Amino acid sequence: MSVNRRFPVLASLAAVLALAGGGVAAAQGTPVAPPADATSPWSRMTSAELIAAAPDDAWLDLDPARLMVLRFIPAGQTEPVQVVSLLAPQFAPDHVATLSALLDGRFFDGLAIVRSQENYVAQWGDGAAATASGLRGAAIPAEFDAVIPAGFDPVPLPDGDVYAPRVGFWQGWPVAWDPAAGRMWLPHCNGMVGAGRGNDAGSGGPASLYAVNGHSPRALDRNVTLLGRVVQGMEHLTTLPRGTEALGFYGPAQARPQIVSARLASQLPPEEQPRLQALDTGHPIYVELLESRRNRRDGWTLFRANRLEICNAPLPVRVAP
Amino acid sequence: MSVNRRFPVLASLAAVLALAGGGVAAAQGTPVAPPADATSPWSRMTSAELIAAAPDDAWLDLDPARLMVLRFIPAGQTEPVQVVSLLAPQFAPDHVATLSALLDGRFFDGLAIVRSQENYVAQWGDGAAATASGLRGAAIPAEFDAVIPAGFDPVPLPDGDVYAPRVGFWQGWPVAWDPAAGRMWLPHCNGMVGAGRGNDAGSGGPASLYAVNGHSPRALDRNVTLLGRVVQGMEHLTTLPRGTEALGFYGPAQARPQIVSARLASQLPPEEQPRLQALDTGHPIYVELLESRRNRRDGWTLFRANRLEICNAPLPVRVAP
Repeated sequence: MSVNRRFPVLASLAAVLALAGGGVAAAQGTPVAPPADATSPWSRMTSAELIAAAPDDAWLDLDPARLMVLRFIPAGQTEPVQVVSLLAPQFAPDHVATLSALLDGRFFDGLAIVRSQENYVAQWGDGAAATASGLRGAAIPAEFDAVIPAGFDPVPLPDGDVYAPRVGFWQGWPVAWDPAAGRMWLPHCNGMVGAGRGNDAGSGGPASLYAVNGHSPRALDRNVTLLGRVVQGMEHLTTLPRGTEALGFYGPAQARPQIVSARLASQLPPEEQPRLQALDTGHPIYVELLESRRNRRDGWTLFRANRLEICNAPLPVRVAP
Repeated sequence: MSVNRRFPVLASLAAVLALAGGGVAAAQGTPVAPPADATSPWSRMTSAELIAAAPDDAWLDLDPARLMVLRFIPAGQTEPVQVVSLLAPQFAPDHVATLSALLDGRFFDGLAIVRSQENYVAQWGDGAAATASGLRGAAIPAEFDAVIPAGFDPVPLPDGDVYAPRVGFWQGWPVAWDPAAGRMWLPHCNGMVGAGRGNDAGSGGPASLYAVNGHSPRALDRNVTLLGRVVQGMEHLTTLPRGTEALGFYGPAQARPQIVSARLASQLPPEEQPRLQALDTGHPIYVELLESRRNRRDGWTLFRANRLEICNAPLPVRVAP
């Protein structure tokens, strides 16, 4: 696969960003990145080809201090599996700092995966254990959404959204926002990681975490603090046996998957640290990738949707070459 | 749980149906069933309470001649698991008839689950085997969508959809439609079952089937023939080990889950037939259920979305009492 590292910024990018201020309905059907430059090799590439062709400057190293490495032993197995999640301090700074302290204190080691509900979430950790140990982590102020910061420059999706006034991608994250309210939040897409809570807004915290394992339950948006997303090994959470109790909690007769360790990658020996990169959602090839998903360029697709829903958009991650 | 079997048809139902002709954007935010009658016990019930309170006439028996019972042995296990799917002749009559003939001929027995791709689909069967055996089933005319029939009276969702002009529920199915084109189709929600195909529209058939196991890949809508949905045992497909090859196909070193049998329920001995019922999507309590999902009435939900995306709507199924 040839890589053109000198390909210029798409002329259409400014037009794309201008859409951010437009109405969702008005923008419907407007391509993210119309292939104005049909001579661009990108404009004819499939999603897989674009990802393979992405130049080095389109890939961003994921900071080991922002990666949570969860290792657990599935019931009936002997070897641990590993799930790596990227944390989102842009959206939930207190939760991420609190989780980082828990990881530093090896809080999760020896705890279990406690819940696996079909087409909803897997959940692990133990808020009560944190409270009993006097640790901050089970009842901290909610971070359901955040003030839109200065310099917020998402790549918007022009196809609307059932749940949010605006959706797009910013700093590697799917993002929903309300321009009128000046608030932004993470949407509950498949693979997103959040902090469990009780009935009160301040009754949750990162001592109890969950990951979305099915169709994105967007009604949870702005009801729970999302603090990250799984970037490697999600299948180990999705394929866990389902719990037999209400809400998919494991029953007394079920062996619960045991957590061997949960650490920030930066706390692991260098040779054990995942070396991952994510495609820069602010890079022009990401805009082209979105367009290739709105209108698929493969030989298989017969009906081109000319639409893309935010949780169907790819957020490519690779092992650093 | 008290059940009020005499509760009258919601006064708002006619208003709801009238929305079907309105614009998606104009209808955004309009409740499906405004609780105009606050004295109704339903108007204060959670989704779980509504399902428990649904009167007998709200539950429809699922015809055993329309249920596919798939039994397979997961790799490393000895006992078969069972996945039951409801077939959709309203949308794909030729595919359902063709599949029924294959089931009658025990075509799938001894074949395997061949693919398990994270956050996409599980797939089983073998189109080439059907062709080699001279069976109809691997290359039949596509039924990607259908003419909207006379008497089409869906319960519409008023919150719009990224992919379709209109969405709602009809005869127990999630449905998308285009009033201008006069076409309707099944959306690729989690659990929907479709027929694999090659690059040509007529290159697929029910000898090779897949089920959506993650976030609903709606870009597949109108590109593949959907012919049913899993109504029991979906977790057995979701939790299959992921395939190591491209697109999640199982590799040569992986044990493929073996299909013990696939039958219409009506072909099974009576004592083995699943006796299932689905909540009637045309019943007033279903409209109330949708509203309870748009604005959750539990003590946990703090931010009420006032929105519902079609693949997040419940389609309750129960074992017949």
